[in-house]
Amino acid sequence: MPRQAAHLNLLFQALADPTRRAVVERLSRGPSATSELARPFKMALPSFLQHLEVLQKCGLVRSRKSGRVRTYELAPGTLRAAEDWMATQRLLWERRLDQLDSYIEDLKEQSQ
Amino acid sequence: MPRQAAHLNLLFQALADPTRRAVVERLSRGPSATSELARPFKMALPSFLQHLEVLQKCGLVRSRKSGRVRTYELAPGTLRAAEDWMATQRLLWERRLDQLDSYIEDLKEQSQ
Repeated sequence: MPRQAAHLNLLFQALADPTRRAVVERLSRGPSATSELARPFKMALPSFLQHLEVLQKCGLVRSRKSGRVRTYELAPGTLRAAEDWMATQRLLWERRLDQLDSYIEDLKEQSQ
Repeated sequence: MPRQAAHLNLLFQALADPTRRAVVERLSRGPSATSELARPFKMALPSFLQHLEVLQKCGLVRSRKSGRVRTYELAPGTLRAAEDWMATQRLLWERRLDQLDSYIEDLKEQSQ
Protein backbone atom coordinates (compact mmCIF):
# COMPACT_ATOMS: atom_id res chain seq x y z
CA MET A 1 0.00 0.00 0.00
CA PRO A 2 1.40 3.49 -0.83
CA ARG A 3 2.67 5.41 2.19
CA GLN A 4 0.08 8.17 1.93
CA ALA A 5 -2.77 5.61 1.88
CA ALA A 6 -1.40 3.88 4.96
CA HIS A 7 -1.22 7.26 6.68
CA LEU A 8 -4.83 8.13 5.80
CA ASN A 9 -5.90 4.73 7.20
CA LEU A 10 -4.28 5.53 10.56
CA LEU A 11 -5.56 9.08 10.52
CA PHE A 12 -9.22 8.30 9.86
CA GLN A 13 -9.03 5.34 12.24
CA ALA A 14 -7.76 7.69 14.95
CA LEU A 15 -10.61 10.14 14.31
CA ALA A 16 -13.27 7.38 14.38
CA ASP A 17 -13.19 7.33 18.19
CA PRO A 18 -15.17 9.91 20.22
CA THR A 19 -12.60 10.10 23.06
CA ARG A 20 -9.80 10.79 20.59
CA ARG A 21 -11.88 13.44 18.80
CA ALA A 22 -12.62 15.04 22.18
CA VAL A 23 -8.86 15.18 22.86
CA VAL A 24 -8.29 16.87 19.47
CA GLU A 25 -11.11 19.33 20.28
CA ARG A 26 -9.54 20.08 23.67
CA LEU A 27 -6.06 20.54 22.17
CA SER A 28 -7.38 22.87 19.47
CA ARG A 29 -7.86 25.37 22.34
CA GLY A 30 -4.20 25.03 23.40
CA PRO A 31 -1.53 22.63 24.69
CA SER A 32 -2.21 20.57 27.79
CA ALA A 33 -0.30 18.40 30.27
CA THR A 34 -1.31 14.72 30.42
CA SER A 35 -3.05 14.87 33.83
CA GLU A 36 -5.08 17.99 32.93
CA LEU A 37 -5.96 16.45 29.56
CA ALA A 38 -7.11 13.20 31.16
CA ARG A 39 -9.26 14.81 33.91
CA PRO A 40 -12.60 15.23 32.06
CA PHE A 41 -12.54 11.63 30.79
CA LYS A 42 -14.03 8.95 33.00
CA MET A 43 -11.43 6.41 32.02
CA ALA A 44 -8.49 4.56 33.60
CA LEU A 45 -5.25 6.41 32.88
CA PRO A 46 -3.63 3.50 30.94
CA SER A 47 -6.60 3.40 28.52
CA PHE A 48 -6.44 7.15 28.12
CA LEU A 49 -2.70 7.00 27.43
CA GLN A 50 -3.36 4.43 24.70
CA HIS A 51 -5.68 6.91 22.99
CA LEU A 52 -2.95 9.56 23.18
CA GLU A 53 -0.50 7.10 21.65
CA VAL A 54 -2.84 6.45 18.70
CA LEU A 55 -3.16 10.20 18.16
CA GLN A 56 0.59 10.71 18.36
CA LYS A 57 1.41 7.75 16.09
CA CYS A 58 -0.64 9.13 13.20
CA GLY A 59 0.81 12.60 13.72
CA LEU A 60 -2.37 14.37 14.89
CA VAL A 61 -0.72 15.41 18.16
CA ARG A 62 2.84 15.71 19.39
CA SER A 63 4.24 15.89 22.89
CA ARG A 64 7.31 17.02 24.74
CA LYS A 65 8.51 16.20 28.23
CA SER A 66 9.78 18.79 30.66
CA GLY A 67 10.87 17.28 33.96
CA ARG A 68 8.10 14.89 34.94
CA VAL A 69 5.39 16.63 32.94
CA ARG A 70 4.50 15.66 29.38
CA THR A 71 2.64 18.31 27.39
CA TYR A 72 0.56 17.55 24.30
CA GLU A 73 -0.28 19.86 21.43
CA LEU A 74 -2.15 19.60 18.15
CA ALA A 75 -0.14 19.17 14.93
CA PRO A 76 -2.45 21.06 12.55
CA GLY A 77 -0.73 19.96 9.31
CA THR A 78 -1.95 16.40 9.82
CA LEU A 79 -5.60 17.45 10.08
CA ARG A 80 -5.07 19.39 6.89
CA ALA A 81 -3.90 16.24 5.02
CA ALA A 82 -7.21 14.51 5.80
CA GLU A 83 -9.20 17.66 5.02
CA ASP A 84 -7.42 18.01 1.67
CA TRP A 85 -8.26 14.46 0.66
CA MET A 86 -11.95 15.03 1.43
CA ALA A 87 -12.10 18.49 -0.16
CA THR A 88 -10.56 17.11 -3.38
CA GLN A 89 -13.25 14.42 -3.74
CA ARG A 90 -16.06 16.81 -2.88
CA LEU A 91 -14.87 19.54 -5.25
CA LEU A 92 -14.47 17.11 -8.16
CA TRP A 93 -18.04 15.95 -7.60
CA GLU A 94 -19.43 19.48 -7.20
CA ARG A 95 -17.67 20.54 -10.41
CA ARG A 96 -19.27 17.58 -12.17
CA LEU A 97 -22.71 18.58 -10.89
CA ASP A 98 -22.10 22.12 -12.19
CA GLN A 99 -21.13 20.75 -15.61
CA LEU A 100 -24.31 18.67 -15.61
CA ASP A 101 -26.31 21.81 -14.78
CA SER A 102 -24.83 23.73 -17.73
CA TYR A 103 -25.44 20.77 -20.02
CA ILE A 104 -29.12 20.67 -19.01
CA GLU A 105 -29.37 24.44 -19.50
CA ASP A 106 -27.91 24.03 -23.02
CA LEU A 107 -30.41 21.30 -23.84
CA LYS A 108 -33.27 23.54 -22.64
CA GLU A 109 -32.06 26.45 -24.81
CA GLN A 110 -31.72 24.21 -27.85
CA SER A 111 -35.25 22.87 -27.39
CA GLN A 112 -36.78 26.35 -27.25
CA MET B 1 -23.50 9.29 22.69
CA PRO B 2 -24.94 12.31 20.82
CA ARG B 3 -26.21 11.56 17.32
CA GLN B 4 -23.60 13.73 15.59
CA ALA B 5 -20.75 11.96 17.44
CA ALA B 6 -22.11 8.54 16.46
CA HIS B 7 -22.31 9.75 12.85
CA LEU B 8 -18.70 11.00 12.88
CA ASN B 9 -17.60 7.60 14.27
CA LEU B 10 -19.23 5.80 11.32
CA LEU B 11 -17.97 8.36 8.84
CA PHE B 12 -14.31 8.29 9.86
CA GLN B 13 -14.47 4.51 10.25
CA ALA B 14 -15.75 4.27 6.67
CA LEU B 15 -12.91 6.47 5.40
CA ALA B 16 -10.23 4.47 7.29
CA ASP B 17 -10.32 1.74 4.61
CA PRO B 18 -8.36 2.18 1.34
CA THR B 19 -10.92 0.30 -0.80
CA ARG B 20 -13.71 2.51 0.47
CA ARG B 21 -11.65 5.66 -0.13
CA ALA B 22 -10.91 4.43 -3.66
CA VAL B 23 -14.67 4.04 -4.23
CA VAL B 24 -15.24 7.61 -3.01
CA GLU B 25 -12.44 8.81 -5.31
CA ARG B 26 -14.01 6.96 -8.25
CA LEU B 27 -17.49 8.32 -7.50
CA SER B 28 -16.18 11.88 -7.22
CA ARG B 29 -15.72 11.63 -11.01
CA GLY B 30 -19.38 10.67 -11.51
CA PRO B 31 -22.04 8.02 -10.74
CA SER B 32 -21.34 4.37 -11.52
CA ALA B 33 -23.24 1.09 -11.76
CA THR B 34 -22.21 -1.63 -9.28
CA SER B 35 -20.46 -3.90 -11.82
CA GLU B 36 -18.47 -1.03 -13.37
CA LEU B 37 -17.56 0.22 -9.88
CA ALA B 38 -16.38 -3.22 -8.75
CA ARG B 39 -14.25 -3.97 -11.84
CA PRO B 40 -10.91 -2.37 -10.82
CA PHE B 41 -10.96 -4.05 -7.38
CA LYS B 42 -9.44 -7.50 -7.09
CA MET B 43 -12.05 -8.64 -4.60
CA ALA B 44 -14.97 -11.06 -4.43
CA LEU B 45 -18.23 -9.25 -5.20
CA PRO B 46 -19.85 -9.97 -1.78
CA SER B 47 -16.88 -8.34 0.01
CA PHE B 48 -17.05 -5.39 -2.33
CA LEU B 49 -20.80 -5.02 -1.72
CA GLN B 50 -20.12 -4.92 2.02
CA HIS B 51 -17.82 -1.95 1.50
CA LEU B 52 -20.56 -0.21 -0.50
CA GLU B 53 -23.01 -0.90 2.32
CA VAL B 54 -20.67 0.72 4.88
CA LEU B 55 -20.36 3.78 2.63
CA GLN B 56 -24.11 3.97 2.14
CA LYS B 57 -24.93 3.46 5.83
CA CYS B 58 -22.88 6.48 6.92
CA GLY B 59 -24.34 8.57 4.11
CA LEU B 60 -21.17 9.02 2.03
CA VAL B 61 -22.81 7.46 -1.03
CA ARG B 62 -26.38 6.82 -2.13
CA SER B 63 -27.78 4.45 -4.73
CA ARG B 64 -30.86 3.96 -6.85
CA LYS B 65 -32.04 0.92 -8.74
CA SER B 66 -33.33 1.06 -12.29
CA GLY B 67 -34.39 -2.35 -13.59
CA ARG B 68 -31.61 -4.72 -12.60
CA VAL B 69 -28.92 -2.06 -12.42
CA ARG B 70 -28.04 -0.25 -9.19
CA THR B 71 -26.18 3.04 -9.63
CA TYR B 72 -24.10 4.68 -6.92
CA GLU B 73 -23.27 8.33 -6.48
CA LEU B 74 -21.41 10.47 -3.98
CA ALA B 75 -23.42 12.40 -1.37
CA PRO B 76 -21.13 15.45 -1.02
CA GLY B 77 -22.85 16.92 2.07
CA THR B 78 -21.60 14.04 4.20
CA LEU B 79 -17.95 14.62 3.27
CA ARG B 80 -18.50 18.25 4.16
CA ALA B 81 -19.66 17.31 7.70
CA ALA B 82 -16.35 15.55 8.37
CA GLU B 83 -14.37 18.35 6.71
CA ASP B 84 -16.16 20.94 8.84
CA TRP B 85 -15.30 19.13 12.05
CA MET B 86 -11.61 19.01 11.09
CA ALA B 87 -11.46 22.58 9.80
CA THR B 88 -13.01 23.85 13.06
CA GLN B 89 -10.31 22.23 15.21
CA ARG B 90 -7.51 23.32 12.91
CA LEU B 91 -8.72 26.94 12.66
CA LEU B 92 -9.10 27.25 16.45
CA TRP B 93 -5.55 26.04 16.85
CA GLU B 94 -4.16 28.28 14.08
CA ARG B 95 -5.93 31.29 15.61
CA ARG B 96 -4.32 30.43 18.94
CA LEU B 97 -0.88 30.25 17.34
CA ASP B 98 -1.50 33.67 15.75
CA GLN B 99 -2.45 35.10 19.15
CA LEU B 100 0.73 33.62 20.59
CA ASP B 101 2.71 35.27 17.78
CA SER B 102 1.26 38.72 18.53
CA TYR B 103 1.86 38.19 22.24
CA ILE B 104 5.54 37.40 21.57
CA GLU B 105 5.80 40.42 19.26
CA ASP B 106 4.36 42.60 22.05
CA LEU B 107 6.86 41.22 24.53
CA LYS B 108 9.70 41.95 22.10
CA GLU B 109 8.53 45.55 21.59
CA GLN B 110 8.19 46.11 25.32
CA SER B 111 11.71 44.82 25.92
CA GLN B 112 13.23 47.16 23.32
